[in-house]
Amino acid sequence: MKLQKRLGILTSGGDCPGLNTVIRAVVSHGILTYDWKVLGIPYATKGLLERKTIPLSLHSFDLRGIDPLLNMGGTILGSINKGDTLNQIDELICGYRDLELDALIGIGGDGSLAILNKLQIIGNWQFIAIPKTIDNDVALTDRVVGFDTAVNTIVDSLNRLTFTAASHDRVMIVEVMGRSAGHLALCAGIAGGADVILIPEIPYSIKGICKHLAELRDKWERRFAIIVVAEGAKVADDSSLYKSCQTPNCGMAQYIADEIHHCSNNKLDIRVSVLGHIQRGGIPTALDRLVATAFGKAAVDLIAAGESGKMAAWRDGQVKAVALDDVLSQSPLHVAKNHYLVETASALGIYIGNGR
Amino acid sequence: MKLQKRLGILTSGGDCPGLNTVIRAVVSHGILTYDWKVLGIPYATKGLLERKTIPLSLHSFDLRGIDPLLNMGGTILGSINKGDTLNQIDELICGYRDLELDALIGIGGDGSLAILNKLQIIGNWQFIAIPKTIDNDVALTDRVVGFDTAVNTIVDSLNRLTFTAASHDRVMIVEVMGRSAGHLALCAGIAGGADVILIPEIPYSIKGICKHLAELRDKWERRFAIIVVAEGAKVADDSSLYKSCQTPNCGMAQYIADEIHHCSNNKLDIRVSVLGHIQRGGIPTALDRLVATAFGKAAVDLIAAGESGKMAAWRDGQVKAVALDDVLSQSPLHVAKNHYLVETASALGIYIGNGR
Amino acid sequence: MKLQKRLGILTSGGDCPGLNTVIRAVVSHGILTYDWKVLGIPYATKGLLERKTIPLSLHSFDLRGIDPLLNMGGTILGSINKGDTLNQIDELICGYRDLELDALIGIGGDGSLAILNKLQIIGNWQFIAIPKTIDNDVALTDRVVGFDTAVNTIVDSLNRLTFTAASHDRVMIVEVMGRSAGHLALCAGIAGGADVILIPEIPYSIKGICKHLAELRDKWERRFAIIVVAEGAKVADDSSLYKSCQTPNCGMAQYIADEIHHCSNNKLDIRVSVLGHIQRGGIPTALDRLVATAFGKAAVDLIAAGESGKMAAWRDGQVKAVALDDVLSQSPLHVAKNHYLVETASALGIYIGNGR
Amino acid sequence: MKLQKRLGILTSGGDCPGLNTVIRAVVSHGILTYDWKVLGIPYATKGLLERKTIPLSLHSFDLRGIDPLLNMGGTILGSINKGDTLNQIDELICGYRDLELDALIGIGGDGSLAILNKLQIIGNWQFIAIPKTIDNDVALTDRVVGFDTAVNTIVDSLNRLTFTAASHDRVMIVEVMGRSAGHLALCAGIAGGADVILIPEIPYSIKGICKHLAELRDKWERRFAIIVVAEGAKVADDSSLYKSCQTPNCGMAQYIADEIHHCSNNKLDIRVSVLGHIQRGGIPTALDRLVATAFGKAAVDLIAAGESGKMAAWRDGQVKAVALDDVLSQSPLHVAKNHYLVETASALGIYIGNGR
Repeated sequence: MKLQKRLGILTSGGDCPGLNTVIRAVVSHGILTYDWKVLGIPYATKGLLERKTIPLSLHSFDLRGIDPLLNMGGTILGSINKGDTLNQIDELICGYRDLELDALIGIGGDGSLAILNKLQIIGNWQFIAIPKTIDNDVALTDRVVGFDTAVNTIVDSLNRLTFTAASHDRVMIVEVMGRSAGHLALCAGIAGGADVILIPEIPYSIKGICKHLAELRDKWERRFAIIVVAEGAKVADDSSLYKSCQTPNCGMAQYIADEIHHCSNNKLDIRVSVLGHIQRGGIPTALDRLVATAFGKAAVDLIAAGESGKMAAWRDGQVKAVALDDVLSQSPLHVAKNHYLVETASALGIYIGNGR
Repeated sequence: MKLQKRLGILTSGGDCPGLNTVIRAVVSHGILTYDWKVLGIPYATKGLLERKTIPLSLHSFDLRGIDPLLNMGGTILGSINKGDTLNQIDELICGYRDLELDALIGIGGDGSLAILNKLQIIGNWQFIAIPKTIDNDVALTDRVVGFDTAVNTIVDSLNRLTFTAASHDRVMIVEVMGRSAGHLALCAGIAGGADVILIPEIPYSIKGICKHLAELRDKWERRFAIIVVAEGAKVADDSSLYKSCQTPNCGMAQYIADEIHHCSNNKLDIRVSVLGHIQRGGIPTALDRLVATAFGKAAVDLIAAGESGKMAAWRDGQVKAVALDDVLSQSPLHVAKNHYLVETASALGIYIGNGR
Repeated sequence: MKLQKRLGILTSGGDCPGLNTVIRAVVSHGILTYDWKVLGIPYATKGLLERKTIPLSLHSFDLRGIDPLLNMGGTILGSINKGDTLNQIDELICGYRDLELDALIGIGGDGSLAILNKLQIIGNWQFIAIPKTIDNDVALTDRVVGFDTAVNTIVDSLNRLTFTAASHDRVMIVEVMGRSAGHLALCAGIAGGADVILIPEIPYSIKGICKHLAELRDKWERRFAIIVVAEGAKVADDSSLYKSCQTPNCGMAQYIADEIHHCSNNKLDIRVSVLGHIQRGGIPTALDRLVATAFGKAAVDLIAAGESGKMAAWRDGQVKAVALDDVLSQSPLHVAKNHYLVETASALGIYIGNGR
Repeated sequence: MKLQKRLGILTSGGDCPGLNTVIRAVVSHGILTYDWKVLGIPYATKGLLERKTIPLSLHSFDLRGIDPLLNMGGTILGSINKGDTLNQIDELICGYRDLELDALIGIGGDGSLAILNKLQIIGNWQFIAIPKTIDNDVALTDRVVGFDTAVNTIVDSLNRLTFTAASHDRVMIVEVMGRSAGHLALCAGIAGGADVILIPEIPYSIKGICKHLAELRDKWERRFAIIVVAEGAKVADDSSLYKSCQTPNCGMAQYIADEIHHCSNNKLDIRVSVLGHIQRGGIPTALDRLVATAFGKAAVDLIAAGESGKMAAWRDGQVKAVALDDVLSQSPLHVAKNHYLVETASALGIYIGNGR
C-alpha cells in the first residue's frame, strides 16, 4: 500500500526568474495541504532518464530560516535547453514509472511543454503545466513566469544606455531576445523610451529607420536615438542599401548599424549593445513572484482535483486552467499587428516598422 | 474661430509612480496624432480655481534630449490630497470655461474620480478618467497606475527586514498602506515571504497570530517571523489580551507588537517598522510605465471619439473603456475573502486572519 | 596532539550588510591557504557561554553551487545587540577554552569590540577584530563593513521621498540612524540632495531651519524641502519656539516637524518619515563586499602571523593592522566640525546647523 | 571692468555616472560662495573651438524643484571621446580667450587630462582637473568619479549571470571594460563571486584556467563557473592550444571560450557575455555622488585660491590637491602584481593568472 501521493516537479528549457518561486509554492502547498511527497526531477527530462530525484521538503533550503527560493533567479533543479528527448520516449516513460510518480508538474515554454505533452499522452501521466518564458509567447495566458523580470532588466539597461547615448549624441542599437515573438522588445521599448522598436512580426525598412532618425534630429532637435531590436526582427526584402554584413552572421543589431551608418553618409555615431544572457537572470520582480506562486498553488490543486493535460493560466485577472492542447496549437503567440501596444508605440511617435 | 482642440490634464489625490508617464503619453499622442493643445492643470482642481495652466508641448521637459517624465516618480503638475472642492462647484465649472477647455483627462483614485465625476456631470464637460492608486482599490480594472511599483518597493523593504530579523531571531512587524483595502499587504506579503498577512477585509485575532508564531518556532524551527499588516487591519472584537496601546493612537503595528509581546510572556524580541511615505515614491516599474502609457493613449483616443464619463481600464489583458459611474458604484474594491491570492496565502501556510 | 588550528569567528552587535561576506572570506582563506578548522560561534559571545559552534567548511552553504553568503545581508551566525556579557567573564573565558579555540576573529562595532578586547586581554586569547557599523564611527579606519550599503539605502529612500514631497509641495523630515555620530546623515544627505542635514555633532536651531526653508521658497522658488536628521541630532538650547512634543518621547523628526509647523504659522505641509530598520538590511554593495572580503583575508593573515589585539583597517587606500586599544580609545569617531563633507554641505547651500 | 569671474567647466572623454553631480557642485559652490559666472563648455574642447557655452545657473535644470543632475548618469554638457584636439591648439587657446574665461575646470580620464594639461600650459590658463574614469587608472587618487557605479553595475550583471549559469551547469565568460588596467575586472570579480579573473597586468594561461575549472568540478563539485575577463587581458605566449579565433578579431571572451571548449574536449557548455556600454551608464551610487560633490567643491576652492595645474584627489580619506604633472607621469595606473586585492583574490581560491 502506497500511503503518500508522489508528485514530481521539473523545470525545462532556458531558465528565467521565478522558477524557484514556483517550486517553493508547489512544495509548500503539496506538503502542508495535501501531505504529498514532492520530488524534484533534476535537469528536466534528463532526470527521468537517469532516475534521479532531489528531495523537496518544507524549508529544506532555508538558510537561518530564510527561504532562498523566493529571491534566487534560475532553478534549483537545473534545466537543459534541449535534448534528444523524443528519441527516448519509452525510456522516459519507464523513468516516470520507476520513480513511482503519481503526477507531474512541468514548468516550461511552448517548446518544452509540447514535448512534455506528448510524453504525458503516451505515458498516460497525470500532468499539469506551468508556463514560463521571457519571450511571453505562450498562448491563452495573460502572464507567464519570468517575463516581467526580463522586461524590467531590459528597461534598466535602456536607462543606462540612454544616459551614455545622450552624452555622446549617439545612436544606440540594443539587441534583445525574441527569435519569433517581439513582446519583450515591444514592452521594454515602450517602457524604456525607445525611438525605434523592431520586432519579428512587423518587417522594417532601413529607409524607414533613417527617415525617422532624420526627423528626430531635424524636427525635434534630438541628437541621439535608442533603437530596440529583437534578435529575430525582419527587414523588408528590398530595403538593404549597403550589405557589408549579413544577418545572422553578424547579428541583427550590427546589420542595422552598418546599414544606417551608410544611409547617414557615415555621419552618425552608432553603437551596438547586445544584452544577451543578463536578460534571463535576476531576482524575480514582485509580479513574477505572485504569478509563480499563484500558478504553483493552482497546479497542485488541479492535481488534487484529478485534472491532467491542463495548464495554469492567468486570464481575466484570475488564475484558471486551460487545455494544454489548446495552448500548444496557438503557440508561439505572436504580437498582433493591431496589438494595443503596437498602436500605443505608434501613438508615441515610435517607429515600429512598415505598419506605421 | 478656435482652430485647435484644448485638452486639459490634471493629477489628483496622493501621488504615485507613473503619473508623469501618463502625462507624457497624453502629450505625445494628443499633439502628434491629433494636433491638439495640451494644457496641464496644476494642483488638481486648484488649478481650475486659479485659472492656471502649465504648457505641455512635445519634449518640453527634455534634458539633453532625455525625457525625464518616463523615469520620475510623482507628478510634474503637482497634486493636492483633498480640498473643499465640492463647496466651490460653480467656481470650478467657471474655471474650466475660462480656461476654454474642450475636454479634460483626470488621473486619480476613487475619491478624486468621484469628485471629478460630479463636476463633469454638472459642468457637462467631456471627461475621461485614468485610475491611479497604490491601494489598487478601483473597481472594473485589473491594473491601476502606481500599484506595481508600490508592491515592489514593499517587497524590497521586506527583503531588507528579513535579513535583520533572521540575524537577531526577531519578530518584525511591518506596517504598510491600506486603510480599507488590503491588496498592497496581500500582494507584497506573498511576494516578500511574509509569515503573517493582516488586511482590513479579514479580521485577525491576537491568539491566532501567537499560535501561528509558536508553530513556526516549534514545528519548523523558524526563529524569526515577518508580519505584514495593513494600516487599516481589523482585530476580531474580543481578541485583545493586553491593551497597553489603543489603535489608532499608536498605530496598528505597535498595537500588535504590544499584544504579542504579552502573549509570548515577554519572550519574543519584537520590532516595528512603519514603511510610510517611501511606498508612494520611486522610479516606476516597467509594468507601471506600460499601464500608464497605454491608459494615456487610450484616454486621448476616447476624447477623440467623442466619449465622456468613461475610465480607461485594463480588462481581459486589454485596454478598454468602462463607465465611470459603474466604477465608482463598486469602489473602493475590497479583497474578496475567497480571492485566489487569499487562498494562495493560506496554501503557503501564511496566517491571514480568521478566515483560515 | 592537535593537528589543525581551530579558528573561531563571531559577529556581535546590530547586524549589517557584509557580515556574511567577511565570514565567507575567513572560511575560504583559513581553509584553502592555512588548512585550519573554522568554527562559527553563534549569537556572538552567547555561543561561548553555551559552548556552541556552527561548522564552517568551504561551500557549506552553497545552493546549486551558488554561495549565498556573498549576497545575503545579516549574519548566518546570528548576533545579539547586547548582553550581560561582562558579568560572565570567567564563564566566557571557560567557553573559549572548552571549545578549544586557538584564535578568534570578532566582527563588531565599537561597543562590541570593547567587550571583546577586555575578554581577549583577560583570557589571553589570540584575537583579531574587524570593524562593522552602519554608523561609521570606528576610529583609525577609513572604511567599515556595512556603511556603504546603508548610505545607498538611505539615498534610495530620499529619492523616493523627494518625488512625493515635490508633487505635494511638502517639507519631508527623514529620520535616520546615528545616536552619537552623524556620518550616515551627512553622507546620505549630501548624496541624496537634502536641503537640511542635522547631526549630533553640530547643534541646530529651529530658527535657522525656518529661515533656510523661507529662503529656499522665496529666493529659489523651491516649494518643497528635504530635511535629513540623525536620531541623535541636538537642538541648541533656547531654540525651541513651541514645545508640543519632547524628544525623545516623540522622536527627533516629529519634534522638528512640530516646531517648524509652528514657526511657519501652520502653513507648511510637513511629513515625517522614520526609516528605521530597513537601514540595516539589504544586499551588500560592491564596496561593502570588497571591504568585507579584504578585511576577512587580512584578519586570517594576521592570525597566521601570530598577531593579536589588532583590528583590520582601511587606511591610505590599503588594508593595514592597527592596535585595537588605539581604536577604542578614539571611538566612537565623531564628525569633525571642519570635516570636508561638512564644508562641502555648506558649499552646496545645505543648512547643517549653527556652524554655518 | 569685468565684475564677475567667469569659470568654464567641461567634461571630456567617455561619459560615466557622476559627471552631472560634479557640475552641480561646481555651479552651486561657484555661485553661492563666490558669486562667479559658471559657463558649461559643450562637447569638451569642441565647445572652445566653436565658442559655445551653456549657461549654468543655480537650479537651472530643476524640474518641479527637483535637481536632475544628482540622479542622471552621463553629462548634460555632452562629451567627445577623442578628437584632433592637438592639431588645433592655437584655435583652442583663442576659443578660451574669446569666451573670456578666467579659469577652467576639466573633468576627464588620463587621456583627456593630458591634452587639457598641454593646453593650459601653452595657454597659461588657470586650470583645475577632476579625475573620472570607470577604469580607475588615474594615479595619485584613491577614488575617481564613476568607478564605484561601474563596479556595482558589473556585480549586478554577475549576479544575474550566476543564476543562469548555475541552472544550466555552464561556464559563463563575462567580458568587462579595461584595455590596459584591470581594476574594474578585479574589484567586480571579487565582489561578484567570480571563479576566474583575468586582467591585463597578469598574463593568464589557457592551461591554468582549464586546470582550475577541473578542480572546481572535481574537488568542490561545482558544476558551473564564472570567468570575468578584462577586454585587454593578456594570454601567456605559448598558452594557446587551439586557435580558431584570434583576438582582437573576435574579442577576448570569445577567444577564451574557444580555447577552453577545446581543452575540455568539447564537453563544457560555455557562453560569452560582453557587457559593453551598460557599464558606463546608470544612476550614480552614493559614493560616486559624494566623490563627485567633494571634488567639485574642492576644485572651486582651488580656483578661488589661485591654484592651477592641480587635480582634486582623494588620499588618506581626505580630498587633497595633487600636481597634475605628477598624476599624468604615473598614469595610467596599473594593478600591481602584489596589490592587496590580487592577493585577496588568490586567498579566496580565484584563478587570477600565472602569478598564482
